[in-house]
Amino acid sequence: MRDVAIIGIGMTDFGELWHDSLRDLFVKAALQAMDDAGVDHIDGLVAGCMSPGLFTGQEHIGSLLADYLGQAPVPGVRVESACASGGMALRTGIAYVASGMHDIVLCGGVEKMTDVSGAQATYALATAADQEMEAFHGVTFPGLYALIATAHMHKYGTKREDLAQVAVKNHDNGMLNPHAQYHMKITVEQVINSVKVADPLNILDCSPITDGAAAVIIAPVEVAKKLKKKPIVKVAASAHATDTIALHQREDLTWLKSTAEAAASAYKQAGVKPSDIDFAEVHDCFTIAEICVLEALGVVKRGQGGKATRDGLTARDGKFPVNTSGGLKSKGHPVGATGIAQIHEIVTQLRGEAGKRQLKDVKRGLAQNMGGSGGSAVVHILEVL
Amino acid sequence: MRDVAIIGIGMTDFGELWHDSLRDLFVKAALQAMDDAGVDHIDGLVAGCMSPGLFTGQEHIGSLLADYLGQAPVPGVRVESACASGGMALRTGIAYVASGMHDIVLCGGVEKMTDVSGAQATYALATAADQEMEAFHGVTFPGLYALIATAHMHKYGTKREDLAQVAVKNHDNGMLNPHAQYHMKITVEQVINSVKVADPLNILDCSPITDGAAAVIIAPVEVAKKLKKKPIVKVAASAHATDTIALHQREDLTWLKSTAEAAASAYKQAGVKPSDIDFAEVHDCFTIAEICVLEALGVVKRGQGGKATRDGLTARDGKFPVNTSGGLKSKGHPVGATGIAQIHEIVTQLRGEAGKRQLKDVKRGLAQNMGGSGGSAVVHILEVL
Repeated sequence: MRDVAIIGIGMTDFGELWHDSLRDLFVKAALQAMDDAGVDHIDGLVAGCMSPGLFTGQEHIGSLLADYLGQAPVPGVRVESACASGGMALRTGIAYVASGMHDIVLCGGVEKMTDVSGAQATYALATAADQEMEAFHGVTFPGLYALIATAHMHKYGTKREDLAQVAVKNHDNGMLNPHAQYHMKITVEQVINSVKVADPLNILDCSPITDGAAAVIIAPVEVAKKLKKKPIVKVAASAHATDTIALHQREDLTWLKSTAEAAASAYKQAGVKPSDIDFAEVHDCFTIAEICVLEALGVVKRGQGGKATRDGLTARDGKFPVNTSGGLKSKGHPVGATGIAQIHEIVTQLRGEAGKRQLKDVKRGLAQNMGGSGGSAVVHILEVL
Repeated sequence: MRDVAIIGIGMTDFGELWHDSLRDLFVKAALQAMDDAGVDHIDGLVAGCMSPGLFTGQEHIGSLLADYLGQAPVPGVRVESACASGGMALRTGIAYVASGMHDIVLCGGVEKMTDVSGAQATYALATAADQEMEAFHGVTFPGLYALIATAHMHKYGTKREDLAQVAVKNHDNGMLNPHAQYHMKITVEQVINSVKVADPLNILDCSPITDGAAAVIIAPVEVAKKLKKKPIVKVAASAHATDTIALHQREDLTWLKSTAEAAASAYKQAGVKPSDIDFAEVHDCFTIAEICVLEALGVVKRGQGGKATRDGLTARDGKFPVNTSGGLKSKGHPVGATGIAQIHEIVTQLRGEAGKRQLKDVKRGLAQNMGGSGGSAVVHILEVL
């Protein structure tokens, strides 16, 4: 199996981008990544996108995007794992490069979500839940995560303020990310007093509806060494795991088993412990999600995610910074793009190119991308060579 | 790169299966494949499905299917390349096994198409065309293939009867396949006199709307040798190529460039010429498609696909049998399942298990699976070891 490196990154601004279609967004991010890598040709393309069919009436985007990028007839395919589609695009590309089937592969993520009404977007997102057991009966994602939040508060004494603190921290980070959808400082009081969505979650506990795209170029480490232009970022681990996508079938609502399984596999592949990781980008689609993810990753003990957030562990100047990009909450959450945008931030930090939000002395970062209410999770560990 | 073998196959009957949901269909095919391989555990799952979102309101099926198969938390992901999603599921699984990331992988395909109206199904299928340039303006797939057929008839003198003969041959084969949707012998006259869909294509030139699933289990050849129970079928080549998904951007409407590119790559990988292939399953979504595919695969010269069909080259007792399964036309076309169902037929023939439709002395078969009007194509070559 060949070792794989990330040799180029690109992303669009995230937001309500009414002048760009899905293909425009993807091509912009992809061209940036190719420029950054210094390549004018790719051997294959993997696009992560959750539901171009429901959001834009367009399937078959692997070919469409390869063509619009000027790279057809190279292989171009789409992978989907709901909101973890971006992470899966990277993992699938890694399989192609590690196997020797391709050398230079573009792994991108994209979602164009604002061309439909809010109700249609909510329907499209709910297809990541179990249609027969959950979505058909009217449950939506804020509702599912509200169940998780309520269970966590009941079981572990997590406070309403702890949830709010996740949003406050991530908005604070997003202020320093020019690509973020929201450059807006918020307070715990504002989160708690914002409009109710699904008790106990308010609108400021929820990540937004977003258009955007991100892309990375991967290659064998040996190829990366020849192109050497920037610090080489190696993929130390790429792991994926699943769980029941319906909440009612889980033993413990507060435990994200797919993340725990993927993380255990990733730590084993990389030969590291959670304490060897310097920082992380995690899937904060709702504030409670970040808290549960910290626990499933083994960064804190079960039930301690809220307290750890309150105590500043995950702040930019904390011991284990989380979501320096602003996270899904502030940077925005174009679902298929999110997993790749996380990789964009990890690489940016590892290269020392993060500007005002740059962390000091970081050598190893982790990205955790999640589908639905945790039915799938992808964990990558990246290191500077 | 590790050599990969197919060690188990399974498929449901194809048809209007109103008592089975998408998950039921997939699990039935998957369990058959696992039984056939003699394994009770898989290391990963790749599901090909074109549009579970538009057909059933369900995305995130990689996790859903891994769970319903009793295999969660193993990695489970969906890949999509329109009607070539099945072929791409196999190719993606091969990358996972060839790289060493997984050993035993289930590659399946599924589509549940009859839960929506005909108009909704036509809309869903049209998302494989270019939404902005084609589908938005009302064109549907029979219309796109009618343009190809008209161009082929004009440029090469292909006759209406030649198109009809593809359907007649494939229905003749489907009579002998217990899994086929239609067990119905038809004549050239019946095809020509059947109801018009998009001139020159009539209803009997078109593959149907179908529910169904198919699955194969793959493993490194070395693992296959240890499990040795049936003849070992090795993947000699796995290739994929793209083209513009919009017809108007192609230099020649009659030339399926993605198939030609994927075939050239596959022949190179396997170290063979078209004349070294004993038989094939190809993507006859419309009768004209099979004619164009024969040419793009290099089985006949450009323009000669109609004449070759008329002359019996591709009949079951011809020199190069094509679609002994009945093809998409007679076996049915649950779009995401089709690429895997083709592999099912190739393996069945290579093992000598095809019953009344068994070909004599076949050692090497080719499967060609296509997305949209040829925007993507996947070609696999399989050999008995």
